[in-house]
Amino acid sequence: MVIVMRQDATEEQLAHLVGKLQEKGLTAHISRGTERVIVGAIGDERVLQSVPLQAIPGVEQVMQILQPFKLVSREFRKEDSVVDVSGVKIGGGHFALIAGPCSVENWDTLIETAQKVKAAGANLLRGGAFKPRTSPYAFQGMGEEGLKLLARARQETGLPVVTEVMNTSQVELVASYADMLQIGARNMQNFDLLKAVGDVRKPVLLKRGLSSTIKEWLMSAEYILSRGNHAVVLCERGIRTFETYTRNTLDLAAVAAAQELSHLPVIVDPSHATGKRSLIEPMSYAAMAGGADGLTIEVHPRPEEALSDGDQSLLPEDFAKVAQGLRRFAGVCNQTW
Amino acid sequence: MVIVMRQDATEEQLAHLVGKLQEKGLTAHISRGTERVIVGAIGDERVLQSVPLQAIPGVEQVMQILQPFKLVSREFRKEDSVVDVSGVKIGGGHFALIAGPCSVENWDTLIETAQKVKAAGANLLRGGAFKPRTSPYAFQGMGEEGLKLLARARQETGLPVVTEVMNTSQVELVASYADMLQIGARNMQNFDLLKAVGDVRKPVLLKRGLSSTIKEWLMSAEYILSRGNHAVVLCERGIRTFETYTRNTLDLAAVAAAQELSHLPVIVDPSHATGKRSLIEPMSYAAMAGGADGLTIEVHPRPEEALSDGDQSLLPEDFAKVAQGLRRFAGVCNQTW
Amino acid sequence: MVIVMRQDATEEQLAHLVGKLQEKGLTAHISRGTERVIVGAIGDERVLQSVPLQAIPGVEQVMQILQPFKLVSREFRKEDSVVDVSGVKIGGGHFALIAGPCSVENWDTLIETAQKVKAAGANLLRGGAFKPRTSPYAFQGMGEEGLKLLARARQETGLPVVTEVMNTSQVELVASYADMLQIGARNMQNFDLLKAVGDVRKPVLLKRGLSSTIKEWLMSAEYILSRGNHAVVLCERGIRTFETYTRNTLDLAAVAAAQELSHLPVIVDPSHATGKRSLIEPMSYAAMAGGADGLTIEVHPRPEEALSDGDQSLLPEDFAKVAQGLRRFAGVCNQTW
Amino acid sequence: MVIVMRQDATEEQLAHLVGKLQEKGLTAHISRGTERVIVGAIGDERVLQSVPLQAIPGVEQVMQILQPFKLVSREFRKEDSVVDVSGVKIGGGHFALIAGPCSVENWDTLIETAQKVKAAGANLLRGGAFKPRTSPYAFQGMGEEGLKLLARARQETGLPVVTEVMNTSQVELVASYADMLQIGARNMQNFDLLKAVGDVRKPVLLKRGLSSTIKEWLMSAEYILSRGNHAVVLCERGIRTFETYTRNTLDLAAVAAAQELSHLPVIVDPSHATGKRSLIEPMSYAAMAGGADGLTIEVHPRPEEALSDGDQSLLPEDFAKVAQGLRRFAGVCNQTW
Repeated sequence: MVIVMRQDATEEQLAHLVGKLQEKGLTAHISRGTERVIVGAIGDERVLQSVPLQAIPGVEQVMQILQPFKLVSREFRKEDSVVDVSGVKIGGGHFALIAGPCSVENWDTLIETAQKVKAAGANLLRGGAFKPRTSPYAFQGMGEEGLKLLARARQETGLPVVTEVMNTSQVELVASYADMLQIGARNMQNFDLLKAVGDVRKPVLLKRGLSSTIKEWLMSAEYILSRGNHAVVLCERGIRTFETYTRNTLDLAAVAAAQELSHLPVIVDPSHATGKRSLIEPMSYAAMAGGADGLTIEVHPRPEEALSDGDQSLLPEDFAKVAQGLRRFAGVCNQTW
Repeated sequence: MVIVMRQDATEEQLAHLVGKLQEKGLTAHISRGTERVIVGAIGDERVLQSVPLQAIPGVEQVMQILQPFKLVSREFRKEDSVVDVSGVKIGGGHFALIAGPCSVENWDTLIETAQKVKAAGANLLRGGAFKPRTSPYAFQGMGEEGLKLLARARQETGLPVVTEVMNTSQVELVASYADMLQIGARNMQNFDLLKAVGDVRKPVLLKRGLSSTIKEWLMSAEYILSRGNHAVVLCERGIRTFETYTRNTLDLAAVAAAQELSHLPVIVDPSHATGKRSLIEPMSYAAMAGGADGLTIEVHPRPEEALSDGDQSLLPEDFAKVAQGLRRFAGVCNQTW
Repeated sequence: MVIVMRQDATEEQLAHLVGKLQEKGLTAHISRGTERVIVGAIGDERVLQSVPLQAIPGVEQVMQILQPFKLVSREFRKEDSVVDVSGVKIGGGHFALIAGPCSVENWDTLIETAQKVKAAGANLLRGGAFKPRTSPYAFQGMGEEGLKLLARARQETGLPVVTEVMNTSQVELVASYADMLQIGARNMQNFDLLKAVGDVRKPVLLKRGLSSTIKEWLMSAEYILSRGNHAVVLCERGIRTFETYTRNTLDLAAVAAAQELSHLPVIVDPSHATGKRSLIEPMSYAAMAGGADGLTIEVHPRPEEALSDGDQSLLPEDFAKVAQGLRRFAGVCNQTW
Repeated sequence: MVIVMRQDATEEQLAHLVGKLQEKGLTAHISRGTERVIVGAIGDERVLQSVPLQAIPGVEQVMQILQPFKLVSREFRKEDSVVDVSGVKIGGGHFALIAGPCSVENWDTLIETAQKVKAAGANLLRGGAFKPRTSPYAFQGMGEEGLKLLARARQETGLPVVTEVMNTSQVELVASYADMLQIGARNMQNFDLLKAVGDVRKPVLLKRGLSSTIKEWLMSAEYILSRGNHAVVLCERGIRTFETYTRNTLDLAAVAAAQELSHLPVIVDPSHATGKRSLIEPMSYAAMAGGADGLTIEVHPRPEEALSDGDQSLLPEDFAKVAQGLRRFAGVCNQTW
């Protein structure tokens, strides 16, 4: 931590700050510049995370030196983490190709989709049983009934299933059916939920919040790891910006950045990131070329009948085309699945 | 709903769309322009909210005409709603001056703060017992113990208390102690939580999400009203933008806009919106002058010892100065408290 | 400047950095922490502004301590600057109430508007002769003809005129007619233009760019002051965010922040900031209450015939109502005009 | 254009609007819904671009149906445009690999860089002689002297040169030396400059503004084409968002979107988009895989001595590695150069 004193800070204020740092077990290193006094706090600055140094009289600015996260960091673990989802590996050259409908709607549509995406090359099945919807009047998901259909689809196709959990009270239930628990973008900072999925032993797919920085995203992953669950896969799904042509703005550089800062695998959701069917193919290729460890893509055999996100769902045949394209890139990118 | 067909849309595609609309009980009104065919859907377009019209072949663009919310809208209720929090009215000329520490930390600090803000003119006491924190290693709040201290502070000062509820499993507990339940910015789209507070009969303070549009904010309020709880107060607390000098960007025009679109009272949180002590005073005055129905301000007698948000907490004497300033504006603004 | 070395930085790399700093006339102050070595650069760090320290091997992070601007800063000049526009003072308790049409369109409309806004209390007349338009097919302004009409309107009403200059080649021409030169938001970082208006001796109204930080805005003002023209008034006109209900997001905290960081007067343009007629009144009051030194408001007697920005123009009678409201706030806010 | 009337709009107001549309040569098509009357304007709605329909009493909302641009649109020209820069083709499968220093600083560094990037596979040389700098105290470029060095480097290497023009008064000068004129992000809406480069017959590289939407970017290109210069290449260089880890947020979906909406080639600048050396390689691959028609990359043999942007410049050997990687992707992407 580097603390910059105000130009008019007094010696008493400086001494007070130094005392405060020592109280926390840190050493203060004082640098007297021509216009400002700067204090370096030597020691583990994480102990200062909840100390409001800015509130101390005479302090102008507080600058953090170390990353606020630990267990998720590359410094903590140098090699890529590989997350195993019921036998399907993600990370370290193992590519996840997750596909399926936005929501589970009925058995026939689900199994048709699951069989087709499997045939096209998907290695995991996605589908929502509990659905976060902006409107209280929109379809809210089938709930446990949907989880049962997902489990049955897994049995028939062999594809492990990923599905969203929205609330601490559902964690046990969802975990009893699913192979991987998804935390949606709107819940990325639902800290009680993060703790709850940190307490189970199921892999977690953690979506980035719509307006969350890369560091906040990693801090949310830190919540999960700090409870003992290290099987976390990050998912970039577009951030909210001023641009309205696309539903969100896909931040592909954040994928590479997260991989630099952390050892966790990072995948991309081009469906939510763009919200436009025509952009999913180029962004899928871009994601793989940019180093992503996987993709999650919405597929529906009859998008116009979909109860949610039909606008951005690919037809199974379009998904097959994307999957084929990805195979061509896989060689150049050293990815296998 | 207005649906714009692609330039190359066929008559079959048009007929298919028209059939789809009729199936939903709407009438299609077709307008053949020089470059595009436009279809107006006559009837209650809200039935189309979960129909992915965009996914229908030949459709280029779908434009919503009506607001997606209903119970919270000005059209539904013309006059200002007044929310009663254990005797303190908010809205319609009744100003809420909510003050207190970010977190409840111990009895002495809480009661000292409560007595001082009351003396300065606050009419409601705030304080967090359950705290959403970016870092798993930061102070997470006192929990039920904190709720008990709040209830005791209410007893001693007569100030009704507002406190955050983070999780559906806490709703009953928090509601048994608090006079008003706060939904934090990060939970604005925690839909299960919205339903849960919609099911109790306590007033709710609904903070705007960091990257939520005004319409999404109102849709979240709609969740609560649609469950039968009409005592909702909205709170603008700054949105996330590219500007980093302030912690967030206070969007005061959103207050006036929300008041135009909705009958619900709207208050402002200048503490989180700016994150800078020096900006709280001018933004408090601006909020009142701009028509806000109240303010919620963080106050701490020893900010440098605060376990959260010390950087932006006002000293009780600074808060008293702000409260005094607000009294001068109150006459011009027709606000009383 | 504080430079943080990478964890794996070598002693040679550190020595190389220290040499680099010394070469620039600075002293290096080395702080060896438990996880990182930190180097403080003692001296005037502004000499480092164009030295890419980040590019030096072993450097992890470079943190600036001092503000990059100088002449515009409060440290350089403690008291509020008062800018004189042909006899009308702005700043230090002198309020600017600038009003007029978006564009100068013809003599009749201009003089009608000028007389009415004067009668309502405006002390400066605005109007564009050169118009920056998103579309090449939209009305581009009357050019010099418009400047002549503005000068004539000044003669008839006594109101000094403010008008935009878009290009270095127009500076001399515009300065020969106008009392104050406006730099539009899209030109805030048109550095050649900033230099050109810095070279004339006319007051400048510098609008904040749509996505410019407060610091960048002040750096653009620094360009003008550094050429010898100290008569600069800043204007907050809304920034671009994800919110689309308003045309832009009015950042009122930026006004107070700019006044803290700088001695220059800061005014507000609620017309462009909101783009919605109904929001101009509340935001005008909020601006004054929040400490703004003035307002610039678009007024048109027949908005539906306006050649630009008709959607957000007030009728003269609506402007009169706002001006009257402002008078009521002026006493509380210690503003006169 | 679709115009939605307010719920309380009168028949007179409707008749007035219809008259207004007819006056402009359009036909009004009236649709009476259950809650609103909707008016479709049949004809070329571009004539309405500067008519403030929103200002007409009774109008609630105005929705544009057609894109505001014409010459740059895919509807205007179906096939990809190929821009020829002194013999180097860009677009339609011809990949531009532009490289060179941020600024031209001296002959030795320039020619060393030019020779090395050519050897590595670059087909165009970039370098700034006129530099837009946030600070008036930073290096502002060598001016004409820099242009001469660029021309000499072209002669020695055979690489056509791309360089920025900042001001209308420089257009002729820059055009006399350069093969392609660059319009920087901060000048994307410097409309006089757009007109000026539209009047010369040199290809233009038009960077997207920091906070410009895809449509505004295309409108700026429309300015150039509407003056008769059709040789425009678009360049995505990152937009400004809340994320601060990267300098800007690379919006790769905007590249694919711009290619859908327009026939113009679109390239990517990963150097400015990320501002981080380590992210340039993955984002270069992602750009090509996502369909970009080229890249522009900053290269400097001694980044720590660079007078601008040294922090994000690649070493020539790192650039060579990226160029090699791109060759591997080129086959999959059907790009040649």
